[in-house]
Amino acid sequence: MMTDAELATPVAVLAGGVGAARYLNGLLSVIDAASVTAVVNTADDTTLHGLRICPDLDTVTYTLAGAIDPDRGWGLAGETWAAMEALERYASVIPQGSDAGVTWFGLGDRDLATHLYRSARLAEGATLSEVTAEIATAWGLGLAILPMSDDPVATRLLTVDGRDLAFQEYFVRDRHDVAIAEVRVEATAARLGDAARTALRDAAVVVIAPSNPLVSIGPIRALDGVDELLASRRDSTVAISPIVGGRALKGPAARLLDELGHEASVVGVAQIYRSIAGTLVIDHADADRAGEIEDLGMRCVITDTVMSTPQIAAELGRISLVSTL
Amino acid sequence: MMTDAELATPVAVLAGGVGAARYLNGLLSVIDAASVTAVVNTADDTTLHGLRICPDLDTVTYTLAGAIDPDRGWGLAGETWAAMEALERYASVIPQGSDAGVTWFGLGDRDLATHLYRSARLAEGATLSEVTAEIATAWGLGLAILPMSDDPVATRLLTVDGRDLAFQEYFVRDRHDVAIAEVRVEATAARLGDAARTALRDAAVVVIAPSNPLVSIGPIRALDGVDELLASRRDSTVAISPIVGGRALKGPAARLLDELGHEASVVGVAQIYRSIAGTLVIDHADADRAGEIEDLGMRCVITDTVMSTPQIAAELGRISLVSTL
Repeated sequence: MMTDAELATPVAVLAGGVGAARYLNGLLSVIDAASVTAVVNTADDTTLHGLRICPDLDTVTYTLAGAIDPDRGWGLAGETWAAMEALERYASVIPQGSDAGVTWFGLGDRDLATHLYRSARLAEGATLSEVTAEIATAWGLGLAILPMSDDPVATRLLTVDGRDLAFQEYFVRDRHDVAIAEVRVEATAARLGDAARTALRDAAVVVIAPSNPLVSIGPIRALDGVDELLASRRDSTVAISPIVGGRALKGPAARLLDELGHEASVVGVAQIYRSIAGTLVIDHADADRAGEIEDLGMRCVITDTVMSTPQIAAELGRISLVSTL
Repeated sequence: MMTDAELATPVAVLAGGVGAARYLNGLLSVIDAASVTAVVNTADDTTLHGLRICPDLDTVTYTLAGAIDPDRGWGLAGETWAAMEALERYASVIPQGSDAGVTWFGLGDRDLATHLYRSARLAEGATLSEVTAEIATAWGLGLAILPMSDDPVATRLLTVDGRDLAFQEYFVRDRHDVAIAEVRVEATAARLGDAARTALRDAAVVVIAPSNPLVSIGPIRALDGVDELLASRRDSTVAISPIVGGRALKGPAARLLDELGHEASVVGVAQIYRSIAGTLVIDHADADRAGEIEDLGMRCVITDTVMSTPQIAAELGRISLVSTL
């Protein structure tokens, strides 16, 4: 059980998509939603069909609303695909070089409503922060969901064979089945949002969710001042390893770590986070690496990190909080 | 039967939505599609959810493709509405004064695909003419469907009670159930498309489809030079009255004519078109007004104009052509 004070502990979570969403779901079952701020990666946002798509924001929102498709891990449960199917009609007339009529990025009919709403609000001058808050409210959520920035940030991936891919081309179209030589986050002009900066500064605990360290958490860290801010409060910042037994539970984290010169293990994750987080939460499966993590100057907490049930997610939420308190 | 020469007669049709689409359907059953050019009103186009919506172009395309919903007269048959229903979720969070999240303009899931494709192509710099041709090809159509202009044109309606409405606010949201004091076509910078100008100049016959003279044909005529061009070839330009027995078959044409100082009759239509069309096709129901039309200097052709069957539409197509040959 959490104490009343713990229930109201202000917590800020650096979040990517699926792993972060499941972690946040667990966290919200042990503390008050009003004390939680999620600072969500937007570097894999994309514009398709003239609509602004924010995959990580939507995965967090839909998951916390209990509306996510549990099998796919993205999009809405019970979704239909009439619009995408109808779009196939135009495949034969798309001119060479055009990005119109893309169907490899699946947008369900109900999911489209979110993109329609967001795109219309952005077109009339609303910030992404404002629209994201409106969407979270519409889904009945009580936590603060913040895009890491209101400015455009784009992750690009340079492949070993010399191509320069937008994130979703790599992740969805090519199913991350391609060797990567470099991840480049184009964030020169992007600023960490003001509310996000305040949350990361004032939270009793900052949690780095079990998301891809390079393409989900990396872009947040690429924003001006984020690493310095976290380093200055390193003792109350805790990271949860997305790597368990040398593998990622979902997505290309392990492969990317390996390709980009990191060890695809909890020790590799510790090396990436050691300057900004005082604690690393790892799975029992990696207990034998705890000594190496401590040798890197991090505290190491061992628990179940594979969130296969709500109970495990809740316990991971609880442990991540108390680990630094 | 048409002669071979008649089958290949180049015909240009000034077109609005439903009435024009039905007329074109009849026309295409009597002459070769390759000889037909539809010049379609775009002044009731709108941008919703960041998507460019072209109601008249789509009604023409869907009708000629045999895909229109026959009962509604707009949108696709067998349509589903999952996206619009999902958009209702955001109704409660739309800020005051925002135009986001509009659900009074129904966009079916399959129809959305057309708007997604068009919006993406326009965003990457294609002209509306190019995209419209691509869409027509995707639907297997052989005629040329041209937007009247690649430039934005907007019809606005000033109500008797002093409001200034966008066309779709008047037509769809308020179901044209409001008294209008003035129709204003904002087309200052808009040019008639080059292909449309060529078609209107070179066609053996120009047909003004049975569309609303004020808000469907009016905006085409408002483009620079259109009235002069038609006047110069008045003898081979034929208009089909959208008014039968003092009423419009669909939409607010009769009411608008009356409110704006015209007679809501075939004679009122003749007065509007007499300077640009040498012939007016009217329904048997209005045979008693033929003399008045001829007194205005127009030839008058009397036939069935209520296109309740494909046969009647085909015969109207045939008669409209031969009336000036």
